[in-house]
Amino acid sequence: MELIDGNKIAATIVAELKEEIAALTVRKPCIALIRVGEDPASVSYVKKKEKTAADIGVTSRILLPPITITQGELFALIDGLNADPAVDGILVQSPLPKHIDEVAVFRRVAPEKDVDGFNTINLGKVAQEDDTGFVACTPAGIMELLARSGVDLKGRHVVVLGRSLIVGKPVALLALQKKAGANATVSICHSATANLPELTRQADVLIAAIGRAEFVTADMVKPGAVVIDVGINRVPDATKKTGYRLTGDVHFPSVAPQCSHITPVPGGVGPMTVAMLMKNTLKAYRLGGGR
Amino acid sequence: MELIDGNKIAATIVAELKEEIAALTVRKPCIALIRVGEDPASVSYVKKKEKTAADIGVTSRILLPPITITQGELFALIDGLNADPAVDGILVQSPLPKHIDEVAVFRRVAPEKDVDGFNTINLGKVAQEDDTGFVACTPAGIMELLARSGVDLKGRHVVVLGRSLIVGKPVALLALQKKAGANATVSICHSATANLPELTRQADVLIAAIGRAEFVTADMVKPGAVVIDVGINRVPDATKKTGYRLTGDVHFPSVAPQCSHITPVPGGVGPMTVAMLMKNTLKAYRLGGGR
Repeated sequence: MELIDGNKIAATIVAELKEEIAALTVRKPCIALIRVGEDPASVSYVKKKEKTAADIGVTSRILLPPITITQGELFALIDGLNADPAVDGILVQSPLPKHIDEVAVFRRVAPEKDVDGFNTINLGKVAQEDDTGFVACTPAGIMELLARSGVDLKGRHVVVLGRSLIVGKPVALLALQKKAGANATVSICHSATANLPELTRQADVLIAAIGRAEFVTADMVKPGAVVIDVGINRVPDATKKTGYRLTGDVHFPSVAPQCSHITPVPGGVGPMTVAMLMKNTLKAYRLGGGR
Repeated sequence: MELIDGNKIAATIVAELKEEIAALTVRKPCIALIRVGEDPASVSYVKKKEKTAADIGVTSRILLPPITITQGELFALIDGLNADPAVDGILVQSPLPKHIDEVAVFRRVAPEKDVDGFNTINLGKVAQEDDTGFVACTPAGIMELLARSGVDLKGRHVVVLGRSLIVGKPVALLALQKKAGANATVSICHSATANLPELTRQADVLIAAIGRAEFVTADMVKPGAVVIDVGINRVPDATKKTGYRLTGDVHFPSVAPQCSHITPVPGGVGPMTVAMLMKNTLKAYRLGGGR
């Protein structure tokens, strides 16, 4: 069994990006990070993104509107960044407060600056196999983990557990593309699936993204399968200071021994998202001709 | 075995639309049909669309630029129709001549007039389960055939043979949606799939859209399955005046007896496309507030 080390792979990507950006002499890529309100998880995520940007030489512009901002005001903020030639990428940290329509906000970001890949056009481009678009960071990170672990999906059966817009659907579309490394047969199952274990047991590559702690057990996995665990769940744990531990959608202790490759949680898919965000930002910079 | 009669179901939909449109008093919906050049199949398709439109009270505007039209000129034509408040829907008949980028043309059509559903935004909206978009006519027709034949996909295993942008991918995304009638487990297989019969035999609903004549044989289908045949292939046949006969992707004589439902070719999915185009045109009219 080989552990897919997301921290290590993400660090490699970040180092590659740093080298590429160091070679840019006129202007560095710039990402605008918008965080609405003071949600503690969002504060920590945005900090992490800001820090990685600084590490690799991407300029970041941090915008922190109050939680009371109206949708119209947020649109105006985004419009200003869309029009600003000094800004290459724009990320609006979710979740947004309830009075704001999140999908509408994601659509407001100009497609060519949508480094989060949540704009409808960029999702459509994934389906169209159009490389001028941006792939959302988590599915893009999963494909990178597989490629950099030497897992070629061609002709293999990828089973995706979960049909979310942010992970399940785009990763299914990516695995299906007629591209080197992809070209998989893809099944998507979810809460309404009958005989779910029967299907997951057929997976050469199982991608678990349903948000249920340790849902995937050993009897659901074919020996020799590759398992990618996208879940990050908090499970009560009295032995921890925090009172909980983090766990994935896969019951790691029983599943890992029978896999050919598996990602741990934490330290698997998670670390990849910020690396892919930076990769998208550099791509936006280049597609914009350095603007 | 129940034959799903596409002609009959399409006629029902057309009759429903005719009644709805008859009730519109101020202005009737209008579809612009652009046909570049004189490709015989395109001539016949556009005629059929024009005739159905006339039958149900949709105004059609037929534009027949010569095969020598440049991409820029075609864009200008589309831009004019996009801006024209009297036009609700725009269809550019494919195939287009080789010197024109088909995807770019489909993207040029304003999303809110894209009754063919080929604009990137409308494909993205299918993935996003956003009903304000337009679903391409063939996948939309398949879903209607299933719904009107009393086939509920919930929790059932839909296997899609073929991953085209026009049929395979959108119908997979539709079957996966969290909506009444949908909610299926979905597998997508294709030319690169290993052990294809093993997967198709698991299908409760098999949608064949690979463009290979009579590819699906009895041993590939589970007894009691629903089979939707999207293929239209010409097979040489000396007994016919034309020298060929039309056949689907399914070997009908051997597969049909063991199905619960099956579509014939011709007379299955084919007749649905024009009906769905008209349905989309009325939808565009209504979304535009009758403009």
